Amino acid sequence: MRTGIATVCLSGTLKEKMQACAIAGFDGIEIFEQDLVTSPLPPEDIRKMAADLGLTLDLYQPFRDFDSVPGDLLAANLRRAGAKFRLMSRLGMDTILVCSNVATASIDSDDLRVEQLGQLAALAGDHGVKVAYEALAWGKFVSDYEHAHRLVTAVDHPNLGTCLDSFHILSRNWDTAPIEVLDPAKIFFVQVADAPKLAMDVLSWSRHYRVFPGEGQFELAKFMGHVVRAGYTGPVSLEIFNDVFRQSDVERTAVDGMRSLIWLEEQGAKWLDANAGTPAVPRRRYPMELATLPQVAEPAGWNFAEVRAADTTGLETVLGQLGFGFDGRHRTKDVQLWSMGAARVVINEAAPDLAAGSAPAIAALGFDVDSPVIAAARAQQLKAPAVPRKSQANEEVFQGFAAPDSTEVFLCQGSADRTAAWTSEFGEGLDVPAGGSTAVIDHINLAQPWQHFDEAVLFYTSALALQPQPFAEVPSPTGLVRSQVMLSADRSVRLVLNLAPLIQQEGGGARTTYQEHIAFAVDDLVGTARAARGRGLEFLQIPANYYEDLDARFGLDPDFLATLQDLNLLYDRDADGEFLHFYTATVGSVFFEMVERRGGYDGYGAPNAPVRHAVQYDHLHRS
Amino acid sequence: MRTGIATVCLSGTLKEKMQACAIAGFDGIEIFEQDLVTSPLPPEDIRKMAADLGLTLDLYQPFRDFDSVPGDLLAANLRRAGAKFRLMSRLGMDTILVCSNVATASIDSDDLRVEQLGQLAALAGDHGVKVAYEALAWGKFVSDYEHAHRLVTAVDHPNLGTCLDSFHILSRNWDTAPIEVLDPAKIFFVQVADAPKLAMDVLSWSRHYRVFPGEGQFELAKFMGHVVRAGYTGPVSLEIFNDVFRQSDVERTAVDGMRSLIWLEEQGAKWLDANAGTPAVPRRRYPMELATLPQVAEPAGWNFAEVRAADTTGLETVLGQLGFGFDGRHRTKDVQLWSMGAARVVINEAAPDLAAGSAPAIAALGFDVDSPVIAAARAQQLKAPAVPRKSQANEEVFQGFAAPDSTEVFLCQGSADRTAAWTSEFGEGLDVPAGGSTAVIDHINLAQPWQHFDEAVLFYTSALALQPQPFAEVPSPTGLVRSQVMLSADRSVRLVLNLAPLIQQEGGGARTTYQEHIAFAVDDLVGTARAARGRGLEFLQIPANYYEDLDARFGLDPDFLATLQDLNLLYDRDADGEFLHFYTATVGSVFFEMVERRGGYDGYGAPNAPVRHAVQYDHLHRS
Repeated sequence: MRTGIATVCLSGTLKEKMQACAIAGFDGIEIFEQDLVTSPLPPEDIRKMAADLGLTLDLYQPFRDFDSVPGDLLAANLRRAGAKFRLMSRLGMDTILVCSNVATASIDSDDLRVEQLGQLAALAGDHGVKVAYEALAWGKFVSDYEHAHRLVTAVDHPNLGTCLDSFHILSRNWDTAPIEVLDPAKIFFVQVADAPKLAMDVLSWSRHYRVFPGEGQFELAKFMGHVVRAGYTGPVSLEIFNDVFRQSDVERTAVDGMRSLIWLEEQGAKWLDANAGTPAVPRRRYPMELATLPQVAEPAGWNFAEVRAADTTGLETVLGQLGFGFDGRHRTKDVQLWSMGAARVVINEAAPDLAAGSAPAIAALGFDVDSPVIAAARAQQLKAPAVPRKSQANEEVFQGFAAPDSTEVFLCQGSADRTAAWTSEFGEGLDVPAGGSTAVIDHINLAQPWQHFDEAVLFYTSALALQPQPFAEVPSPTGLVRSQVMLSADRSVRLVLNLAPLIQQEGGGARTTYQEHIAFAVDDLVGTARAARGRGLEFLQIPANYYEDLDARFGLDPDFLATLQDLNLLYDRDADGEFLHFYTATVGSVFFEMVERRGGYDGYGAPNAPVRHAVQYDHLHRS
Repeated sequence: MRTGIATVCLSGTLKEKMQACAIAGFDGIEIFEQDLVTSPLPPEDIRKMAADLGLTLDLYQPFRDFDSVPGDLLAANLRRAGAKFRLMSRLGMDTILVCSNVATASIDSDDLRVEQLGQLAALAGDHGVKVAYEALAWGKFVSDYEHAHRLVTAVDHPNLGTCLDSFHILSRNWDTAPIEVLDPAKIFFVQVADAPKLAMDVLSWSRHYRVFPGEGQFELAKFMGHVVRAGYTGPVSLEIFNDVFRQSDVERTAVDGMRSLIWLEEQGAKWLDANAGTPAVPRRRYPMELATLPQVAEPAGWNFAEVRAADTTGLETVLGQLGFGFDGRHRTKDVQLWSMGAARVVINEAAPDLAAGSAPAIAALGFDVDSPVIAAARAQQLKAPAVPRKSQANEEVFQGFAAPDSTEVFLCQGSADRTAAWTSEFGEGLDVPAGGSTAVIDHINLAQPWQHFDEAVLFYTSALALQPQPFAEVPSPTGLVRSQVMLSADRSVRLVLNLAPLIQQEGGGARTTYQEHIAFAVDDLVGTARAARGRGLEFLQIPANYYEDLDARFGLDPDFLATLQDLNLLYDRDADGEFLHFYTATVGSVFFEMVERRGGYDGYGAPNAPVRHAVQYDHLHRS
């Protein structure tokens, strides 16, 4: 599959965009007209730079408001088109995107459109240019890709074809199956974009909220499957209008985009395999070849979590109070191991590269996978930056890479009994009795930088096969927190990505606060809390008002309610079961949560999250 | 008019919110349930704190999903209501908001609703509580305020009335006129919210995009007029769900909200005066008294603009090259005066309080007004913070206040001949010939902090009688720039508020860049540009690609096009006329623009703005 991206997806100048696209590994680019018009580079220099960078210039776009106009406007439009065709010749480009008319269309006649598109095709032919006509979702008279294709077929000129854009098709819920029966010789270009399903006017949706494939909710694998079965062989190119991408680091965003196409290619291949029909038509029968990636199953569980700190005293205290046992220090590295049943926490004392300071912070996640090598190979192909891990002879070497928020992700060999071989590298610990031998890591909650949230969703989806759930918005005293759960199917891995609100700073800037946490599941939360209190744990203090409201909502048994309040426990209930949990006070930017799931409860106590945010904020402000 | 605000409008803890509301001058507040549930304060303490702060506790809200349910759910809902009624008694509150059911309504029967609301009213009566039933715009069976009022009327219980919320009414385009014929004894509460007109699902619109009155596009003056004519006498209270307000400084946002109610009160009074009917019913005939403000006309023009810098050399050079004459130094202050016709620029050398550094920046705007004293009195009543201006005897004292972005706004006595008396306080200048004696300030473009954009719109609307125009979004290499023009009716004052995109910083933070500019209008831009070039002015360099595109779009006369390109002029044309303009290079965070308007052209060359942003960005990155 030939990969492409429109320059409008990225921040910076045309030169910066092109360089970033080359680094990210795209085959070609679409030049968005405004990027050229605002560039100091002459067209000949752009052409040479693209060649030097190994990028083809696949599409000049957009040419707007051509068809369905009266004669005088048509003449002006043809003159305008001629100027662009001459420019394209200097750029060495042969395909231009012409959108169905939005602003100046005044005559609704397919005969007239065929006649006018025919004139455009003839002019394009004179300049050796191919016109890819696209039905915009909000085109005045032409908004359906099949309609556009009928017009193109009626014109029947070798220099006129269509452009298929997944956003324009899927935002209108047009059926994608008929793509297969389009004349492949008339499909000049394919653009792909994903989007969250929003109930808003389609123009605003398109201009601000598109995301890279895999970051939204469109059925793009199916779309790709139909495109391949149609016999299309040209570039598959990203055209994403996204407010955040426009503001983000250009190289990061380009890599994010490239990852989305690699993932989409695989998803398309899978769709073709799963929908091969009877008799089955093998994927390789089609002219476009879709590459696949090393295949991995979703992770089987958490192997460990790692927290870093310059001063580890606070962490050690809290873990001990929670009932974790100290399993010793590593024989060659400055790290400690603490555990409680299968819940393992590594405390890294080295903290060599803490960009955000030396306060305790979650630094790494270890996932149990079937084959760390295959999983690492997949992540590598998805452009995940590898993390070097120093180790001595006879020590287990983890395959690892960096997530978009810089958290290190390690791929570990899982085991049926939930033990980990690498723990033998740790020396003798203290003889502390474990408080809850059945504990496991229930979920880990990471704060994401505002400009990399969508990227993180795609990263965990594509590299680790976690499934994004519908996101929630939780009120906090400093704004709404967007919370996105990523799950393995059997719930053994629950990763929560939080987008903390920006808080204003002097001088017009903004920052986010980064409280993250690790939650451990136990069988007996009340017992765990009592024991922790006995060891002197500082609980997050839950207001009395919360318990009154809880009682109003659920009508709880008075003794049970008193126990909850006495121990600062929070409670939730739904049709599937019950949830009990408590939080520790925060150490640096990390805190811990203990949870007990009763019955089939599958949530995270979302109604209690505002209480947690408010109390933490209050505590932060008072201290 | 009694003023109120719901705590959900503001950031922070309940205590911080209440304190901010008291400081801003509200009469009372609505307690949003979540703010109470998450607060460590016992209800009795909240009650006492409100009393100490001089705030009444007007409404407990919201109570959700009560009506249209089967019997078992009704029993649970009544139990839940009882708990809240007891809580209200501890808070000393007598009114609760009950929303029409969204989530659990399953039986669509008005008879059943009357029966169930009747039971709720009876229970409320037992506790001395009044229930204000509100039709949510997205209520499952009840979404129209007249429907809610019919139900309440049918129940006919003294403890049951309705709540009118302008958002729920105007978002659905319900006719507001019938408000007048509602039974005033049954209107228990009125909430007001404004909003931009967005085409999206009404729930998302409501939860994220509400703004304070005057910051959106709803017809709130009319709504207020109908409420007053209905005979309502209770609080008029803000209930604004806004993502940015939730993140902003609580005291600033509270003042912004208070300003919006003061403004709304005046607008309501004006609407009543203008719609008194025949025979006229004077406003004072109605039970609710609406206060008005000192009346001002829109400003007649720009008096001056002030730029501050620690090192003024760069500014002096550019102004001289543009053709401005140096009119001398002030006799007691460290400021210089430069002018070109009626365009006056004050360069302030003192720069004592430049928070963002000492680079040149726009510091103050002077507006010509009919009566500076009346205008200042109005601004004062609208809670604009006054700016002290030091002056000696015999010097003109400007009335001034600080705009939301900290720019100082001065109210000056205008004159028919566009001169300014205060210029006589300046000593002798250089004998430099003025380059364009007819120049005036055409517009001034200020960058706004992201969290105060809506506040700024209301500020200039209410304090200076400028009219907000529909906003535009301009692509730049670092993101979309939101651009909001504020106009006087005769266009003698054009103020452009720009919301620059946030740019990511290390560690997850963000900042904005603040390039601002002053544009001067002349009669002969080509001549002005030639003369400036002769004096060595550094123009913003416009790419050749721009001129090719200009020609493709407009088919310009080749000589004219060559002149434009030779002089780095930009060009735009529409049905009303033509626009020529050029930009200087940036000095500190300020640059200048020279414009020539031909015919009735009323814009700002918006199609050229991306070029300007791209070239400035490129220049910033290279230097």
